[in-house]
Amino acid sequence: MTLRNDRLLRALACKPVDVTPVWMMRQAGRYLPEYRASRKRAGDFMNLCRNPQLACEVTMQPLDRYAFDAAILFSDILTIPDAMGQGLYFSAGEGPRFRKTIRTAADVESLPSIDPASDLGYVMDAVSLIRRELNGRAPLIGFAGSPWTLATYMIEGSGSKDFRRAKQFIYDQPEAGHLLLRKLAEAVTGYLNAQIRAGAQAVQIFDTWGGILSTPAYLEFSLPYMRQIVNDLIGEREGRTVPCILFTKQGGLWLKEIAASGCHCVGLDWTMDIGRARSRIGNLVALQGNMDPSVLYASPDVIRREVDAILRSFGSGPGHVFNLGHGITPQVDPDNVAVFVDAVHELSATGRR
Amino acid sequence: MTLRNDRLLRALACKPVDVTPVWMMRQAGRYLPEYRASRKRAGDFMNLCRNPQLACEVTMQPLDRYAFDAAILFSDILTIPDAMGQGLYFSAGEGPRFRKTIRTAADVESLPSIDPASDLGYVMDAVSLIRRELNGRAPLIGFAGSPWTLATYMIEGSGSKDFRRAKQFIYDQPEAGHLLLRKLAEAVTGYLNAQIRAGAQAVQIFDTWGGILSTPAYLEFSLPYMRQIVNDLIGEREGRTVPCILFTKQGGLWLKEIAASGCHCVGLDWTMDIGRARSRIGNLVALQGNMDPSVLYASPDVIRREVDAILRSFGSGPGHVFNLGHGITPQVDPDNVAVFVDAVHELSATGRR
Repeated sequence: MTLRNDRLLRALACKPVDVTPVWMMRQAGRYLPEYRASRKRAGDFMNLCRNPQLACEVTMQPLDRYAFDAAILFSDILTIPDAMGQGLYFSAGEGPRFRKTIRTAADVESLPSIDPASDLGYVMDAVSLIRRELNGRAPLIGFAGSPWTLATYMIEGSGSKDFRRAKQFIYDQPEAGHLLLRKLAEAVTGYLNAQIRAGAQAVQIFDTWGGILSTPAYLEFSLPYMRQIVNDLIGEREGRTVPCILFTKQGGLWLKEIAASGCHCVGLDWTMDIGRARSRIGNLVALQGNMDPSVLYASPDVIRREVDAILRSFGSGPGHVFNLGHGITPQVDPDNVAVFVDAVHELSATGRR
Repeated sequence: MTLRNDRLLRALACKPVDVTPVWMMRQAGRYLPEYRASRKRAGDFMNLCRNPQLACEVTMQPLDRYAFDAAILFSDILTIPDAMGQGLYFSAGEGPRFRKTIRTAADVESLPSIDPASDLGYVMDAVSLIRRELNGRAPLIGFAGSPWTLATYMIEGSGSKDFRRAKQFIYDQPEAGHLLLRKLAEAVTGYLNAQIRAGAQAVQIFDTWGGILSTPAYLEFSLPYMRQIVNDLIGEREGRTVPCILFTKQGGLWLKEIAASGCHCVGLDWTMDIGRARSRIGNLVALQGNMDPSVLYASPDVIRREVDAILRSFGSGPGHVFNLGHGITPQVDPDNVAVFVDAVHELSATGRR
């Protein structure tokens, strides 16, 4: 099946494009009334993830509404610890929680290996279904959480304000911490490779909580495991490179190290100036980002001005995938997303600049 | 009155010291049982701030227990908007809230000027009392919130997860935003100068929420107002320079700009490697920081190892004030604070390295 819109893959390979490709973290999400309707039908959030038809349905919704240049699998980063038997559940208004937590070396040792292709078969079914449904309209991005990010939830048992249990764990029991991260890196690698075999054409690793670490701790407990995953991923499929995007929220301090990990693209949060990032790491890898999601609460004129400022900051030449600097938030007006997407295409059109 | 311990002021002036001076953000705080007792006597948090005797009592508590090289005024950054009539209150477990919020240009225009020396007389009384009580044992640090940080609370009406109202305000109404920030910068300048006149021997500006801005927004809405304050501060008092420390949480991306603001010292949060920071900005200013507060949950051995790692990363030569990279959290064991403070002095002793 021909991929009719290959802007994303071209930009990730630092090849020229007619207009800058754009997608949005959490583009299938609560800001869309049709998403809220699907979720209501599913009952709870995990039912939505576990049902391939519904996961496919919500994945496609933003592509039906907007001119996005990529679909991203609808799922959750915590499917892996869930498959490891940690008992993921979502309590209303409180975010994810686990029935079990990791607190001792013995907890880590008894954590089972998983076979993502079968243990997370519902995800692979969703990937296949979405690929069929996309039918070449745009590429499909698969994803996983970084080992460190998954570990924080597994140790804390939930989200956290200061992650003190997770940090205490790696500081006081670094060997057990490394064992946990190795086990998670292995699971993430298998998970992403299974997604690629099922049809994902690019993958992103979300290191949502790498940025809460000190520099030495980030370089010891988060980045090396992502590097290992990147190097163990299937490099080519269907005759095309399968690029990998690394996104560390608040990772601007470690750009050079992230860019040297072997990834094809560094995802930037909104705090880093994309032009400075580019001048720091050169054209080694592509850059993705990075409008502040809060700009989507501003007026259409301001949204267009901000898109333009980011395009100008990146400058000419290939290697830019436009995105927000973090996931879109639920209260955004869906009309403003159209303004955003159209502004990226219009203001980046070859010949305009 | 002779200042018997001038390590802090020497380090801030990049002069040699016998051992690296150390203090802790929120050193007068809930981790101390004697603080909790004082607060209970005060009733609520603002009573503690508004009562000079009690504010002095809790300011002195950590100095009686540990070998800290500085006292920091016990107060709250939100005393300024409170004095402007915004109606600060604290609801149990929910943090600060305001009865009024800033949502329109008219709200900004009607915001009154304050005379900090009289309108915040209770703070100045606390400063004088603490200076008397310190009696030269260690210098007293005064402080204020940055204009941008104060503005976020005033616009949101409380703390926030994504600060979308504050960001929407500056994006959609930049002129009103700048007027608000100008008014706040004027109030903060007057407030810090009044603290200096009352006896503060150094001051710190807490830009707690600068780091949630994009780079252009930080350089437009936060840093310039801090620069203006720094330049309008009383430079000398009692025959000594009154140094100013700028602390932007998650400000590692903008170190050079912060260091060039005219401040004497840049406060680092725990994510930035202090050695990298030093090599980036040279010996232009002193550096303060920056152990991850979560390390205080680890074992004494780990705390000592982390202190040592930060001292080694900073390297030899003057200009280092040791601190945490953010405020100490309430659940820390007070014994671990002693381990921390003593480790800084012991491991930095001249001749040891």
